[in-house]
Amino acid sequence: MQVEKYKIDEFNNSIESAHKRKFDFVAADVNKLEDILKKLADFQVAIPSWALGTGGTRFGRFPSKGGEPRSLEEKIEDVGLLHALNRSSGAISLHIPWDIPSNAKSIKALAAQHGLKFDAMNSNTFQDQPDQKHSYKFGSMQHTDKAVRKQAVEHNIEVIKYGVELGSESLTVWLADGSCFPGQLNFRNAFQNTLESLQEVYAALPDAWKLFVEYKAFEPNFYSTTVGDWGQSLLYASKLGPKAYTLVDLGHHLPNANIEQIVSLLLMEGKLAGFHFNDSKYGDDDLTVGSINPYQLFLIFKELVEGMDTRGMNHASDLGWMIDASHNVKDPLEDLLQSVEAIMVAYAQALLVDEKALKEAQLSNDVVRAQEILQTAYRTDVRPLVAEARLRAGGALDPVAFYRTQDVRGNLVKERGAKTVATGL
Amino acid sequence: MQVEKYKIDEFNNSIESAHKRKFDFVAADVNKLEDILKKLADFQVAIPSWALGTGGTRFGRFPSKGGEPRSLEEKIEDVGLLHALNRSSGAISLHIPWDIPSNAKSIKALAAQHGLKFDAMNSNTFQDQPDQKHSYKFGSMQHTDKAVRKQAVEHNIEVIKYGVELGSESLTVWLADGSCFPGQLNFRNAFQNTLESLQEVYAALPDAWKLFVEYKAFEPNFYSTTVGDWGQSLLYASKLGPKAYTLVDLGHHLPNANIEQIVSLLLMEGKLAGFHFNDSKYGDDDLTVGSINPYQLFLIFKELVEGMDTRGMNHASDLGWMIDASHNVKDPLEDLLQSVEAIMVAYAQALLVDEKALKEAQLSNDVVRAQEILQTAYRTDVRPLVAEARLRAGGALDPVAFYRTQDVRGNLVKERGAKTVATGL
Amino acid sequence: MQVEKYKIDEFNNSIESAHKRKFDFVAADVNKLEDILKKLADFQVAIPSWALGTGGTRFGRFPSKGGEPRSLEEKIEDVGLLHALNRSSGAISLHIPWDIPSNAKSIKALAAQHGLKFDAMNSNTFQDQPDQKHSYKFGSMQHTDKAVRKQAVEHNIEVIKYGVELGSESLTVWLADGSCFPGQLNFRNAFQNTLESLQEVYAALPDAWKLFVEYKAFEPNFYSTTVGDWGQSLLYASKLGPKAYTLVDLGHHLPNANIEQIVSLLLMEGKLAGFHFNDSKYGDDDLTVGSINPYQLFLIFKELVEGMDTRGMNHASDLGWMIDASHNVKDPLEDLLQSVEAIMVAYAQALLVDEKALKEAQLSNDVVRAQEILQTAYRTDVRPLVAEARLRAGGALDPVAFYRTQDVRGNLVKERGAKTVATGL
Amino acid sequence: MQVEKYKIDEFNNSIESAHKRKFDFVAADVNKLEDILKKLADFQVAIPSWALGTGGTRFGRFPSKGGEPRSLEEKIEDVGLLHALNRSSGAISLHIPWDIPSNAKSIKALAAQHGLKFDAMNSNTFQDQPDQKHSYKFGSMQHTDKAVRKQAVEHNIEVIKYGVELGSESLTVWLADGSCFPGQLNFRNAFQNTLESLQEVYAALPDAWKLFVEYKAFEPNFYSTTVGDWGQSLLYASKLGPKAYTLVDLGHHLPNANIEQIVSLLLMEGKLAGFHFNDSKYGDDDLTVGSINPYQLFLIFKELVEGMDTRGMNHASDLGWMIDASHNVKDPLEDLLQSVEAIMVAYAQALLVDEKALKEAQLSNDVVRAQEILQTAYRTDVRPLVAEARLRAGGALDPVAFYRTQDVRGNLVKERGAKTVATGL
Repeated sequence: MQVEKYKIDEFNNSIESAHKRKFDFVAADVNKLEDILKKLADFQVAIPSWALGTGGTRFGRFPSKGGEPRSLEEKIEDVGLLHALNRSSGAISLHIPWDIPSNAKSIKALAAQHGLKFDAMNSNTFQDQPDQKHSYKFGSMQHTDKAVRKQAVEHNIEVIKYGVELGSESLTVWLADGSCFPGQLNFRNAFQNTLESLQEVYAALPDAWKLFVEYKAFEPNFYSTTVGDWGQSLLYASKLGPKAYTLVDLGHHLPNANIEQIVSLLLMEGKLAGFHFNDSKYGDDDLTVGSINPYQLFLIFKELVEGMDTRGMNHASDLGWMIDASHNVKDPLEDLLQSVEAIMVAYAQALLVDEKALKEAQLSNDVVRAQEILQTAYRTDVRPLVAEARLRAGGALDPVAFYRTQDVRGNLVKERGAKTVATGL
Repeated sequence: MQVEKYKIDEFNNSIESAHKRKFDFVAADVNKLEDILKKLADFQVAIPSWALGTGGTRFGRFPSKGGEPRSLEEKIEDVGLLHALNRSSGAISLHIPWDIPSNAKSIKALAAQHGLKFDAMNSNTFQDQPDQKHSYKFGSMQHTDKAVRKQAVEHNIEVIKYGVELGSESLTVWLADGSCFPGQLNFRNAFQNTLESLQEVYAALPDAWKLFVEYKAFEPNFYSTTVGDWGQSLLYASKLGPKAYTLVDLGHHLPNANIEQIVSLLLMEGKLAGFHFNDSKYGDDDLTVGSINPYQLFLIFKELVEGMDTRGMNHASDLGWMIDASHNVKDPLEDLLQSVEAIMVAYAQALLVDEKALKEAQLSNDVVRAQEILQTAYRTDVRPLVAEARLRAGGALDPVAFYRTQDVRGNLVKERGAKTVATGL
Repeated sequence: MQVEKYKIDEFNNSIESAHKRKFDFVAADVNKLEDILKKLADFQVAIPSWALGTGGTRFGRFPSKGGEPRSLEEKIEDVGLLHALNRSSGAISLHIPWDIPSNAKSIKALAAQHGLKFDAMNSNTFQDQPDQKHSYKFGSMQHTDKAVRKQAVEHNIEVIKYGVELGSESLTVWLADGSCFPGQLNFRNAFQNTLESLQEVYAALPDAWKLFVEYKAFEPNFYSTTVGDWGQSLLYASKLGPKAYTLVDLGHHLPNANIEQIVSLLLMEGKLAGFHFNDSKYGDDDLTVGSINPYQLFLIFKELVEGMDTRGMNHASDLGWMIDASHNVKDPLEDLLQSVEAIMVAYAQALLVDEKALKEAQLSNDVVRAQEILQTAYRTDVRPLVAEARLRAGGALDPVAFYRTQDVRGNLVKERGAKTVATGL
Repeated sequence: MQVEKYKIDEFNNSIESAHKRKFDFVAADVNKLEDILKKLADFQVAIPSWALGTGGTRFGRFPSKGGEPRSLEEKIEDVGLLHALNRSSGAISLHIPWDIPSNAKSIKALAAQHGLKFDAMNSNTFQDQPDQKHSYKFGSMQHTDKAVRKQAVEHNIEVIKYGVELGSESLTVWLADGSCFPGQLNFRNAFQNTLESLQEVYAALPDAWKLFVEYKAFEPNFYSTTVGDWGQSLLYASKLGPKAYTLVDLGHHLPNANIEQIVSLLLMEGKLAGFHFNDSKYGDDDLTVGSINPYQLFLIFKELVEGMDTRGMNHASDLGWMIDASHNVKDPLEDLLQSVEAIMVAYAQALLVDEKALKEAQLSNDVVRAQEILQTAYRTDVRPLVAEARLRAGGALDPVAFYRTQDVRGNLVKERGAKTVATGL
């Protein structure tokens, strides 16, 4: 299903005067308005291919309305659709083996047609595939058996190859490796085995590529994780070399962790890879971005904007931005639209922070003033700014409303059927 | 120090056109504007007398700039000052023995002069006083020794007497009772002793009075607390009778607790007393309200508005609203202004929630729509509404800015000296 | 597969002298030795039918060695096997629809042959079954649609009927009901709908039956749970009536919860149903009992022994004891043997607590002494006591060693095949 | 007060036959018995000078029975007393400015007389001292004002000087530096300032000295901590150089952290400094070691023993072992005796782990066997081994019992008075 541009225009026209009033109001108080609108327009969040279908928990997966993508081509179509609506989802992140491109050339062409790039490739050594020789039951890169580690390494190298064909330039390695019980593994040996395996993958990285080492505190292993926190990930990345970085997934921390400080320090060390965005209340809940604690998201973006500016980095291209969520009770496409919107809102708020005044307040330890500065930016209703940037880029002023008005899901069900189930968790 | 009204007016005049522009903008989209402005004007948050001085932690207390209130009279002056600025702090909550009124009549008159009421009285059986016969080292109302329990009961009854003289109508009982080590106490006996003690206090309550039973998960006891969670507090309140209620302090929960659900259920049971507002990241951090997770505060107010409306309750008068924070690195008065503002912002956002649409979304399990409705209200910049309500009530459009412009703290230091230390934690 | 008694005897004979030495040593210091041995022998822990197969997480399930039970008959055989080895697993807890008995009479006979009783029946409204009319995607007993609630109620009544045929006398209701996002549901309405549904189930309970209301803080729902903590469960149980109780699952709490205090208070209120035993480090990890924090397990048993003794309850029969764990990386039967052993060890330690001395220490607030008393019991090596009780009851002195010596799993694989997968999570 | 050796002998004689029976029983199954007894005898845990008095919380401090040390000399006496009883407390860790030695030579002589060494010195930049020029209200080594940082650096260098005079060889730096509110500080600048300050202290370290960088997740700052977790501490230690190490305090982690894994990895990196032992349920509760989760303590010691053995380290001398607890409801000396006992018990259990069998189990991913091996060691009653090592070293078989029998506290009160209050938290 393709969204015809004229329908978006019609939709926008119907609400543009209301938008104009709001935009003019908020724009009047914004310094460097055009600069901010350009940054908002440039900012692109990659959609992972596995987020296009309905997810589940270990207790089960409930049926969706259907219309889920049945192939890599349809996944690209779905992301293209999101991007047509919000102009901020111009990349897709593939997962191997769920998304093996049988014909890379035609897949690339299809993506280009939708204005999409191929973001980080994702390997999978946390599940066994039907035809797989060795099981990952007791880990992959950490495994005590060299043959299992070799299989995991080779899988990652294969993923890089697929990525090269598609024009991706980074590999995200998330390892579920760890243990469920005290005594199950020797922590040091597990670390050393993992490091050695990662080194072999690193050696196979093309020149322009980056290796993203993701960490996670717990789950699916319930006692220890071999890349368990940012400290461990940074150790690996430092030992691997300049092309290795630490990837932050918002849901992969212990309760109460100060993620924004982690982000700031990783930027300081030049080792921040980017993000897997989502939100959570308890653990790795994989909820819609900004649905539980939007202020935390804002604080993270504040660190990103200030830290990247200090290092002279390009917001849009120097880090990897991706959503990693699961949609158990929402239409996946609607959920993704809400997630991208929440990201854009937080980014816009962060761009409004008066950094100069904040620095002064910090230097004089004026804590009250520092809070006023942050909250002034955060409490501003920046939705019209985000909408304006989207409008200028050709997107819909209100993507969710447009999606519903056009009954996109209904059309997808008609096209693809009501019982389709996309790959994913 | 008294703030002269004409200075507030001058200040308001200087920024009123900017305010007007913002207010008109946001007001244009608000249904029942006058109703909302009235509710905002009516809403009063009590200031606890112990929050007017600089707090500390167990590692120490650092000096403030001074000017802290040296007497009950000066505490009332401080709250009067806050109220003059924001018109939303029209009550003070006293703590015995820190605030024993030597002359109740003159204290009442002074408060009235500042437009202040006396909110809930607070007893203290978590510290030993110099002249005290029995120590609360091993608890007060839970104590294995009947004489200690009796002393705690009598103290509470004395607090009620002071409250009656001042026109207060409720007693908040926060018990630090509990244990630091497994085996230290018999949980059941501790509960039964506490219940019996509370019953004796309850018996001494005047007719119109309410008893608020506060709960806390941990600290100062580090293994168990005898009124440890809402379940325990509700058990006490139910066994005590219709005048006993559960008080919620936002910082008194285990990590990740869903406080808004607790609020909703206590309202359902007709047993919600009210709030001690603050914010926290780790434990009972007693930070400025709304400084860490303002969305949670909004969600709590959403439950309050909907739940109170359903029961036909008056927002302003049917529950107790109080700040309970500690100001270790901020000027206490500035901190309190920020806290009250955060409360008013969250309340205003909650008043904007389209309850009818939300009910429909809930009935049809339209989770995406429900989120849109909440976020539409939350993302609205309601500061002009709050400011307008304040303006109409005679307060300052921007209390913190006014406070600084007038150098209120500097004047207090001049009046009271630089080394004053108010009672508190 | 049946374990022949003479093999157990042979095994025991081979290590009995070593056992005898240890038992005599520890027994010499035990008061009321025979009483304790009898209590240990009487104590039976039910095995849930779904714990006999290899579990998984939402990220996947890894293959086991096979030999998993393919039918209800084989599940009973497996529990029979456990019971033959440890003489402490004399009950099985069934789950509907996974364990629908096609012929109740023969199933009962088979169980009796293995010395097994039917413990609590478990309903399932947290997953959709293939032939089901309404989906539980948005809850079951809480659902906004009366027809869904009715379906859930009728399912529970059907489960009771199966239970009656088998001689069970209790129904455990665990509801996954809740919400994933703020605004998704009205907490009060969800509570009221759930209460009404539970009342209908309660009305269908046979006279001697009990209804166990299980609570869980989170997962599979990630924002709120409609029976979320002991406070909520107790509210339901109190409103339902005298046959309704609160069931405690050790893994269903927020971080750092003091579970032993909850247990003590529920006993005080006469509303404790019993336990789902497991252990965890992060959330509902469903690990082997006692594998992460065995001291906590001991403290819980200490409360149970003291609390039940005070109320004159029978340890073995007045509460429900069940394991509820998931075995992702262990042989399920070995894991269950380890879990039961950990329970027996904790129970034996709790029986050794000098309650009289502890009461004295508590009355005099002698915290050091109270800790000495608890640790004296806990640090005692009670394994010989547990083994002796097992030996006298006809079990194996060391069940795990026996299981391995006899290659029980290998025999099960031979009998049942290597690719069997039992129902479960 | 000095404990006369003959009294210890008398006490031991009175219970030695009971001890002998127990020791012979457990010793019969222990490999390398003499080696283990020697290791237990060699292991010494330093007592911090501030743990000898009654502690408190931010809510207050309750009176003790008195007899607390009034001077550095009496603190040394107290530790000498503990050491005379358990022969495992042969070191004291001083805090400046609470313990400034006016005459180092005589203090050294006094300590030597009691068989005590001077363990790590502790600086204090988390409180303001009366005569101090700059305040640490907004941090010390992180401070935005260079003059404050300089003051903090100079204080640390002064602490080193005191330490050199006394024969200490390490400096522990615990910084309370951090922030209470978002925006209060720039994380990177705070890190860089802290690093620069630490480098200046490092430059002043004598050749044989070590610098221990302690981390803490939160408190007294409630939003961020500038040395917040092991990852941050390791970053500092790596940047500082080979004499800098990471110190682990058991209570300084986020909920559910896997501390034993952190310990293992720090050992792997050659950067583990040692420990501040205590226990906790919620935060930095500073409870008696082993009073809440003794299995965790055992797991940590298991990592220590295996990791140190692999690196050829000496258990007793190559890491720093210290208690860091607060005694709010217990006699401090009794509490310390219980803490040391819990440490020795965990160490003894760890020494019993069959490392060879464990390695085999790990290599074959035999998780059940690995757990059996750990639990076999843990469930062994090792108290007789610890007592025997103590007996041979001249200590009391049961230190707490001896302490009470001799009414040591009563004698101290007589000597020093009932109202003494030692320095500390």
